[in-house]
Amino acid sequence: MSFGLHYLHTMIRVKDLDRALEFFNLLGLKEKRRKDVEAGRFTLVFLGDEITEAEVELTYNWDQTEEYTGGRNFGHLAYKVDNIYQLCDHLQKNGVDILRPPRDGHMAFIKSPDGISIELLQKGDALAPQEPWASMENQGSW
Amino acid sequence: MSFGLHYLHTMIRVKDLDRALEFFNLLGLKEKRRKDVEAGRFTLVFLGDEITEAEVELTYNWDQTEEYTGGRNFGHLAYKVDNIYQLCDHLQKNGVDILRPPRDGHMAFIKSPDGISIELLQKGDALAPQEPWASMENQGSW
Repeated sequence: MSFGLHYLHTMIRVKDLDRALEFFNLLGLKEKRRKDVEAGRFTLVFLGDEITEAEVELTYNWDQTEEYTGGRNFGHLAYKVDNIYQLCDHLQKNGVDILRPPRDGHMAFIKSPDGISIELLQKGDALAPQEPWASMENQGSW
Repeated sequence: MSFGLHYLHTMIRVKDLDRALEFFNLLGLKEKRRKDVEAGRFTLVFLGDEITEAEVELTYNWDQTEEYTGGRNFGHLAYKVDNIYQLCDHLQKNGVDILRPPRDGHMAFIKSPDGISIELLQKGDALAPQEPWASMENQGSW
């Protein structure tokens, strides 16, 4: 039986919308549309890449004062990238910690300001090992 | 600057792989590929719909004994469906609770066995209100 299921988005909650947007913009995700809901006192922002259809929906509750916590049932969002070293360099220069550096030229992990783990994967074959990544140690958790 | 970001998947952890697969199969998601990693004692299963490219990755750790808990930073996975009433009927007949019934012919929420919230949205315009959904109350949280 087919119900024509069609993946639309993954929703995450963000405490500070500007900070979250700055982070996702560094990755190259762009705002596609936004909805301010005065009655419910929240804003929804949909972010997309230039290639795939599925989006990330940011929910910003205007009156949220506490940090959002993470759980273990949700793992991460994963993205392929053209050149994992270039992206990690760009992220690091803009203050994002590379928690699991791409020592293998293949995989890295970072976290959003709200603790959402994000996996970055090199498109195609792994790149040749390259400093400073090859000898960079893990930090934190992801 | 573009890094060619390309959404691959959302990873979730599942305590009981068979139970999780049964749930996602009811939705119409199909297993695309599987990787058993004996050394790390885990299995990865990638699930896709027939329309979009982004997948759901299930991580099954063989030695996990406790239920996975949820957090607030992750919200939900969202899918469009051809007919929200038919899918909710199919789910309910197979033991899935419709936590937020599609009273408006537009939106419903369910949860996976591991507590991952899933939003179902009617494609195109909302359907006309229809029983038993129109008068069905919410239950639990999502």
